[in-house]
Amino acid sequence: MNNFTFYSPTYFVFGKDTEKEAGHYVKRFGGSKVLIHYGGGSVVRSGLLDRVKNSLQQESVPFIELGGVQPNPRSGLVYQGIELCRKEGVDFILAVGGGSAIDSAKAIAAGARYEGDFWDFYEGKPVTDALKVGTVLTIAAAGSEGSGDSVITKEEGMLKRGAGGEALRPVFSILNPELTQTLPAYQTAAGATDIMAHVFERYFTNTKEVEITDRLCEAVLLTMIKEVPRVIADPNNYEARANIMWAGMVAHNNLVGVGRDQDWSSHGIEHELSALYDVAHGAGLAVIFPAWMTYVMKHDVNRFAQLAVRVWGCQMNFMNPEETALEGIERLKQFLSSIGMPINFRELGAKEEDIPLMVEKLGLGETGTMGNFVKLTGKDVEQIYRLAL
Amino acid sequence: MNNFTFYSPTYFVFGKDTEKEAGHYVKRFGGSKVLIHYGGGSVVRSGLLDRVKNSLQQESVPFIELGGVQPNPRSGLVYQGIELCRKEGVDFILAVGGGSAIDSAKAIAAGARYEGDFWDFYEGKPVTDALKVGTVLTIAAAGSEGSGDSVITKEEGMLKRGAGGEALRPVFSILNPELTQTLPAYQTAAGATDIMAHVFERYFTNTKEVEITDRLCEAVLLTMIKEVPRVIADPNNYEARANIMWAGMVAHNNLVGVGRDQDWSSHGIEHELSALYDVAHGAGLAVIFPAWMTYVMKHDVNRFAQLAVRVWGCQMNFMNPEETALEGIERLKQFLSSIGMPINFRELGAKEEDIPLMVEKLGLGETGTMGNFVKLTGKDVEQIYRLAL
Repeated sequence: MNNFTFYSPTYFVFGKDTEKEAGHYVKRFGGSKVLIHYGGGSVVRSGLLDRVKNSLQQESVPFIELGGVQPNPRSGLVYQGIELCRKEGVDFILAVGGGSAIDSAKAIAAGARYEGDFWDFYEGKPVTDALKVGTVLTIAAAGSEGSGDSVITKEEGMLKRGAGGEALRPVFSILNPELTQTLPAYQTAAGATDIMAHVFERYFTNTKEVEITDRLCEAVLLTMIKEVPRVIADPNNYEARANIMWAGMVAHNNLVGVGRDQDWSSHGIEHELSALYDVAHGAGLAVIFPAWMTYVMKHDVNRFAQLAVRVWGCQMNFMNPEETALEGIERLKQFLSSIGMPINFRELGAKEEDIPLMVEKLGLGETGTMGNFVKLTGKDVEQIYRLAL
Repeated sequence: MNNFTFYSPTYFVFGKDTEKEAGHYVKRFGGSKVLIHYGGGSVVRSGLLDRVKNSLQQESVPFIELGGVQPNPRSGLVYQGIELCRKEGVDFILAVGGGSAIDSAKAIAAGARYEGDFWDFYEGKPVTDALKVGTVLTIAAAGSEGSGDSVITKEEGMLKRGAGGEALRPVFSILNPELTQTLPAYQTAAGATDIMAHVFERYFTNTKEVEITDRLCEAVLLTMIKEVPRVIADPNNYEARANIMWAGMVAHNNLVGVGRDQDWSSHGIEHELSALYDVAHGAGLAVIFPAWMTYVMKHDVNRFAQLAVRVWGCQMNFMNPEETALEGIERLKQFLSSIGMPINFRELGAKEEDIPLMVEKLGLGETGTMGNFVKLTGKDVEQIYRLAL
């Protein structure tokens, strides 16, 4: 096990009706002027935005609003938000929505406290200071409600990049599973895929002797395998929604990933898909992950066999572990298909002829690599895209 | 799933040599005058105390010391610590040791900020304010390094009681698995039993639909079952020590217990054993838990069968789940015996004739009950003690 630090100071408030406590928690964590940041339609239509505003009014906390966050949130709105925060003296950003609203809120929070261009953070500068961010989560997916990460897309060149830092962890996050019940099945499934992908990125490691985090990873995956088909069958299944929602936080606050090298190449490879076609991140991951697994499997067949046996319930083929490993990948594909996810370029609507462009945009050049489990060159990535056709 | 809040803001620093960073973290978290609080012999002899002091000196943080914490820490030393903190203007307590040193430090931290008798907190008053506490952990067991709990024994009547509150969560905890390598096998095993017991107290619940926390509980138990025999066989197995140490934190910061009713009667029943005979808490739990399980099993046979199948790898007897449930309890007993723990009164050195006294000291009277999975009267507890003879 590697040395590590783990710090997850977010105050989580979980359960029915908890969005009504937003004002209470903003006050408790010292917010005196709030920017409510959200996407659009559904948050307004469902009445959620009004409930959150009422909650702030009841606590006499003044607020302004900035809606319009898009999926794969854009830098343009971030610049707008930063300006607004400075002009209005905002000291707390309350994101109401899914990963996009939260990631956009984090970008604004970091940028408002920084004299340079906020995009610097998305080119590798660590975030050490930011306005406080709280969240009211409406989608179980990105895990941004408990993480110190944010992903933003720059319109110029459609560059999708991530930033990170402890200062980006939300001070509180309100998770009401009821709010996810109105999500269409496709978005629910894409979110679930994202959650599982956050675990896979941590699971595939070259670090030895990491039983506790292996088991915690498997715990999240086993939960997803049980609960996701239930919410696809019945969107109003509160209990299954609740289990998925908490699993989504656990999958990405890094509790399941400490002390081990992590991979994250599949996320990078996928980012080019969702940036180019503006597809749901989770759907892109459903296409990329099985292809990545197939491509790298021989690097550590036993780890893939372990996943197949412990998570997918496959019988170990002791004479031929590779067969078990492959069976696990096949089961993942079947699972993703069964919940309505695309598992290849064709189903996603991606095009073979764009592969060279996507590889180029990753910026690996002739000698660069990405990922840790297996270090992938641009040529490797191209083959992975082709495996996903 | 029940509504819940989860807040675990402790900054964890994990791995080799990390005790040398104690001074850095005290400073980072605002400590300006430190009380180093510890037990005795081994912390001094091993040179750990000196390394911690050097680390504080390097950061120019002034400190005083209070050693002498006993296992099952006593109120007498807590009163002494409170007085010392007030007199010397201490604002940060650094516990160096196991659960006893940490629990004692928490009691002093709460008492120093309270005008009344600190024992009030151990009779049910929630702790809302306390000096900051940091820890350098030397035993994987109590989970106190990541929890908001503290257990203290009052000499007068040997009353062992717990207090709790968010203010008691350590601001940082340093976990170096190397520090646990010198522990005798018996203490290692008792600590491991304590960790497993923290999971069992949460696992046995009447709350329905808690797959994610069920699976997380099982992840910790599966890890312990793999790793504990390895450290008993080879005390210097760093990797196994590391997995156990992190499992101990995860078992008790409540991540595996949120959203579900918890039991905790076995801890209460055990406290009378360790208070009366001054045995290791974990050893007492090894005696009580199998007896408690046997006594309450029929309340929810399927839950016990689930544990047997998922954790102990038993084959489910679909015609007779009770047989599977019992097999799981039997496997737990065998496991505890195999790592050197006592599993009955005789092996622990407890006496049948003391049972009425222990039941009486629980203070349940004629009508009181303890526990949640099954509400136990004094008569029930008496039968559990007798099952453990």
